[in-house]
Amino acid sequence: MSNIHDKAQELKRTLAESEEFSTLKSLHEQIAADEVANKMLENFRQLQLDLQQKQMQGIQITEEEAQKAQQQFELVQQHDLISKLMEAEQRLSVIIGDVNKIITEPLEEIYGNPDQQ
Amino acid sequence: MSNIHDKAQELKRTLAESEEFSTLKSLHEQIAADEVANKMLENFRQLQLDLQQKQMQGIQITEEEAQKAQQQFELVQQHDLISKLMEAEQRLSVIIGDVNKIITEPLEEIYGNPDQQ
Repeated sequence: MSNIHDKAQELKRTLAESEEFSTLKSLHEQIAADEVANKMLENFRQLQLDLQQKQMQGIQITEEEAQKAQQQFELVQQHDLISKLMEAEQRLSVIIGDVNKIITEPLEEIYGNPDQQ
Repeated sequence: MSNIHDKAQELKRTLAESEEFSTLKSLHEQIAADEVANKMLENFRQLQLDLQQKQMQGIQITEEEAQKAQQQFELVQQHDLISKLMEAEQRLSVIIGDVNKIITEPLEEIYGNPDQQ
């Protein structure tokens, strides 16, 4: 495990030092320092969270709620910092997804590839 | 990303070469070659899967089903190879969990630690 642990730490440092991560961190800090942007983003996240929780509880989302979410999304997208942040989050999420795919490849040898089933 | 990719590949190799992974793979092969063990494990996995799917659909699991699952679990645990396999799976699952925790630490800098909220 110690070897695995060391390699995981190396990977972590590489991620933390990547341009993608620095960009995300910087945008996050810029938004935190911008009261309007911060509030907009907070409201949007809260709305998303509320809808997700409803879905997880099996509660049907109304037409009105879906429209409101879409409107809020279009609104925050128009904010330069927020749209850049969401893009940066998306990029990092793809990277983390790729990394997870790579490191769990050995398990595919044993259990097969779930994507191909 | 290329650097991250390289480090992820290194970590993957370390995982694939670990004693924990080799043990799991070997047990999996031994069970695959043992018709009785293989059938027992398959039945148990199928039962687990059925119950999980019910839970995900919000269907209440009956007392009888829960008892059957517990009995099946006790049964497969008595099989030496299967109980060893489950132990090996548990160990690897802990390792993968630890690895994920390490590599997503940089994100905690930005989003905070969800475990502490």
